[in-house]
Amino acid sequence: MQEKTNHVNVEQHLKDNPFLGNPQNLYDAMNYIMQIGGKRLRPQLLILSYLSQKHEVSEDALNLALSIETFHNFSLVHDDIMDNAPIRRGQGTVHEKWNAATAILAGDNLLIKCYELILNTNFINRIPILKEFSTMAIQVCEGQQMDMNLPEETDVNEAKYLEMIMKKTAVLPATALKMGAMAAESSDSICQFFYEFGLNLGLAFQLQDDYLDAFGQEHQIGKQEGGDIIENKKTILYLNSLKNLNPEEQTVLLNLYQSKSSDNAHKINTVRALFEKSGSKDYLIKLKTKHEHLALEFLDKITMHQNVKNQFLELFHFLKNREN
Amino acid sequence: MQEKTNHVNVEQHLKDNPFLGNPQNLYDAMNYIMQIGGKRLRPQLLILSYLSQKHEVSEDALNLALSIETFHNFSLVHDDIMDNAPIRRGQGTVHEKWNAATAILAGDNLLIKCYELILNTNFINRIPILKEFSTMAIQVCEGQQMDMNLPEETDVNEAKYLEMIMKKTAVLPATALKMGAMAAESSDSICQFFYEFGLNLGLAFQLQDDYLDAFGQEHQIGKQEGGDIIENKKTILYLNSLKNLNPEEQTVLLNLYQSKSSDNAHKINTVRALFEKSGSKDYLIKLKTKHEHLALEFLDKITMHQNVKNQFLELFHFLKNREN
Repeated sequence: MQEKTNHVNVEQHLKDNPFLGNPQNLYDAMNYIMQIGGKRLRPQLLILSYLSQKHEVSEDALNLALSIETFHNFSLVHDDIMDNAPIRRGQGTVHEKWNAATAILAGDNLLIKCYELILNTNFINRIPILKEFSTMAIQVCEGQQMDMNLPEETDVNEAKYLEMIMKKTAVLPATALKMGAMAAESSDSICQFFYEFGLNLGLAFQLQDDYLDAFGQEHQIGKQEGGDIIENKKTILYLNSLKNLNPEEQTVLLNLYQSKSSDNAHKINTVRALFEKSGSKDYLIKLKTKHEHLALEFLDKITMHQNVKNQFLELFHFLKNREN
Repeated sequence: MQEKTNHVNVEQHLKDNPFLGNPQNLYDAMNYIMQIGGKRLRPQLLILSYLSQKHEVSEDALNLALSIETFHNFSLVHDDIMDNAPIRRGQGTVHEKWNAATAILAGDNLLIKCYELILNTNFINRIPILKEFSTMAIQVCEGQQMDMNLPEETDVNEAKYLEMIMKKTAVLPATALKMGAMAAESSDSICQFFYEFGLNLGLAFQLQDDYLDAFGQEHQIGKQEGGDIIENKKTILYLNSLKNLNPEEQTVLLNLYQSKSSDNAHKINTVRALFEKSGSKDYLIKLKTKHEHLALEFLDKITMHQNVKNQFLELFHFLKNREN
């Protein structure tokens, strides 16, 4: 199956191209995060948008895909420091296995390696591709800062939250798809349709992530469960619950989100119950479905071989139904 | 005076081009570190190498210079987190004034902005310039990790230490000079001479920094004094002292570098005395002088207007004699 082949292609290219250099501990940390797994969705999306206009994958396209996966890993390493996260993909985070200093430097070096990978391709439009990449990278930083600001912020609303997850999560798959299309020298409108497809796919993905973070279990999601609840993150679930709960329940929720609880299990269970009772769990699922539909509408605007289209749809349904 | 003009040019360009975006705290942190001063040496070097082949500064050259200063500030922000440094340029560090998470993100975004600045110039050889920049940036990360590894490492020698400071400090001015020359479309050999000039200048600069870190006072150097001693950094001063002290004094030095002392003032004073007695202070000055001479030899290989040459020499002598 072709979808499988793309995954294998990306995975193999990644394994064949570890980052080389000294000192050893810096490069070990970089290669560790790259190699402990992950779904490789973003590089696969890039390869697919490239293949929508070209007949076969090139070494340069694979390197472009690798740069996108590298960027994703850069952001994971730095985010995990900021979130004080002990576990990633079921394994120790870089700052846990090494230390914060090495994790900062490993992230920095991964970010630079993204640029190096793109610079070393031979695409005629490397400069526009690099500009797209930079625009995305800046938005991801902004989104992460917005996310960090949420617990302290008093005037958070749904629109602000959606802007945050758009920047933090959705622009990356959107840009991956656009970069693949650009590398294949697609028209501006096709590039833009791919971007919009990716943006809506990314939003749906993140809303599913919010769902799993709140309702999934550690052995299932491969990271600490209820992380957003513990960290008092003002997600859609929280914002919508506050709007729809009765005053008494609102107070319970507000109080739980006012401080760091010493009893995480109790906090998580209480908050989960409130998220369900308020209808916010259903609301989240509905919102996610809306963006899934929008994604498909943009995908439908793009003419491509049915073979490639099927692979997009397969990835799409995999994401739609994932449980981790 | 032209040298003054270049400094003013760089400073003005920097003030006229703050980084703009949201959320506010992220951009405040980025602009804070850019605006609290600094000698702007690296961007001045870039402007000068550009002027060695061109008659006047262009907006693009100023943006290239700004990208170099931005990179320098990125590395300061992240290094200060790793070193747990409270003071920078006589003011609070970014992670002190905001927090570690914002400092990590501010640094990340500054690094991306470097690329964006270069990408938005119109130099015909942007791609080779970007590749030079990336090679330098990777070495700076490697150098910083080598530096972090030093306290724990058992087989440090002078060569290893010099490799570390070359990567951590010297490749940046070297690359700044080379980028300016490349932007001015200089020949490969001129670009390389500028690089070597900068590399030796950078080494001399860092050796002077090591000297000031050990022997300067806080009000003079604008940061915590004796920082390397407190952190047990195996600098040339330390390595050379261990070689030349008598066994009893060696033991004193080794013991002081084995643990974090609670009495920093006593530790600093004792170590300073050993650095002097062992002749390491003189040795450091001699090594610094050697690289100053090498720098001048490379500068002399490059044909340029006497006017620009004089500005290089002025900067050179300013660096040679600086006390902070």
